[in-house]
Amino acid sequence: MTPLSFLDTLADAASAAIMPHFRTLSHVENKEDDSFDPVTIADKAGETAMRDLIEQHYPDHGILGEEFANKAADAKNVWILDPIDGTRSFIAGVPVWGILIGHKTNDKATIGMMCQPYTNERFSGDGHSAWHQHGQNAKTTIKTRACPSLNQATLFTTSPDLFNPKERKAYSAVENQVRLARYGIDCYAYCMLASGHADLVIEAGLNSYDIAALIPIVEGAGGRVTTWDGGNPVFGGSIIASGDPALHKIALDALHSA
Amino acid sequence: MTPLSFLDTLADAASAAIMPHFRTLSHVENKEDDSFDPVTIADKAGETAMRDLIEQHYPDHGILGEEFANKAADAKNVWILDPIDGTRSFIAGVPVWGILIGHKTNDKATIGMMCQPYTNERFSGDGHSAWHQHGQNAKTTIKTRACPSLNQATLFTTSPDLFNPKERKAYSAVENQVRLARYGIDCYAYCMLASGHADLVIEAGLNSYDIAALIPIVEGAGGRVTTWDGGNPVFGGSIIASGDPALHKIALDALHSA
Repeated sequence: MTPLSFLDTLADAASAAIMPHFRTLSHVENKEDDSFDPVTIADKAGETAMRDLIEQHYPDHGILGEEFANKAADAKNVWILDPIDGTRSFIAGVPVWGILIGHKTNDKATIGMMCQPYTNERFSGDGHSAWHQHGQNAKTTIKTRACPSLNQATLFTTSPDLFNPKERKAYSAVENQVRLARYGIDCYAYCMLASGHADLVIEAGLNSYDIAALIPIVEGAGGRVTTWDGGNPVFGGSIIASGDPALHKIALDALHSA
Repeated sequence: MTPLSFLDTLADAASAAIMPHFRTLSHVENKEDDSFDPVTIADKAGETAMRDLIEQHYPDHGILGEEFANKAADAKNVWILDPIDGTRSFIAGVPVWGILIGHKTNDKATIGMMCQPYTNERFSGDGHSAWHQHGQNAKTTIKTRACPSLNQATLFTTSPDLFNPKERKAYSAVENQVRLARYGIDCYAYCMLASGHADLVIEAGLNSYDIAALIPIVEGAGGRVTTWDGGNPVFGGSIIASGDPALHKIALDALHSA
């Protein structure tokens, strides 16, 4: 089994663990007292299913996951898991959340998958190519689209409320110039960008597990992902993704013009 | 064919006309010069397909649609069509838009359907009952959930930017009290509310074709839909929908407290 096909194995296991809980939740746990950050039984079941398989197939690899303690986080090879990215969508029944499965070697994101089990879609990439699979159909190659200027761009962010005042000012400097801004779709946004349906995703306050899996998908489709400072995005933080590499510098400049 | 089963016939025809254009758009028309309101070939093809069937099966009924001129808008029986509600989601590839098919008799919404062809879901209602169908599975009855207070509520709106300053103040008075607010999913929000996954939808500036189809679904599932003044929602305007009827008055009072 290649690492790329292992992504499907992990996604199968996580989907089987999570889907019995989608649209059937009777309650939501609170992870923190001071903010609404839901964790579900599904989240934990999905991550456990993936961790078990990784420990069986790659016992010397590290694991970073949202729900449980890190394992060998400083290993050369580390799997980075978010069983349900977009828990707010998940608990509201909206099928734009995703199972994120990433892998890095020496802190470079290498392969990744986003799986949405209700729409039956998988997006995957290895930094050189990227693919979309819908149901039992064959995988198709996905590519970002050309978009050389902000005034032609479609921009996604999860919610303007996720930004602190300084970040929001920077974000607004971009939003005010784009053609269309859309909120609320988490990891699905990066996959639409990779598929050539959107041009920019700008977010802040991300964890490594929110973004690592998506980097090889966006880069494999021809796009760019960096921090707002142009650095390695694999650790999370303030993240910007562009479908057209030429747009990336323009958008970074706009962020820093605020 | 009963009017309820005719909803499926219309949804079949509209889906067949629209889906060849989903995630394949090469350009987007601008409906108005002063704002970004995309109309696609798909939108027009979907509405034409439905109008042809209505004129064939119910030649004396009126038709209100988003894309073409009204037909006998003051007839006793009128069909109310929005071939793609959520055009912004549609053009960005995100499968939370819907085909809305409504019907009213003497200005009372009677039956309605929301069809999402990519996720293969249909939500329908007749004001007394409401149903969800996924793929080839049997229809299941849907019900709203109990939510007696704002601080337990999940609230949806398409975007805070759709409100004028006065409306935004009223909306914020509710948003500040709820447990979770989520943006960006248009008609899909009402269907999640009808299915018991969310508690409130608050929007403004709606047209009749944005809401008419959703009223019999929400009411059939046990919820309430009115204007912000408590009036008949079938003409659109400022709309509030509640899953728990007890919450409706509380939310209306909060809107008017601002």
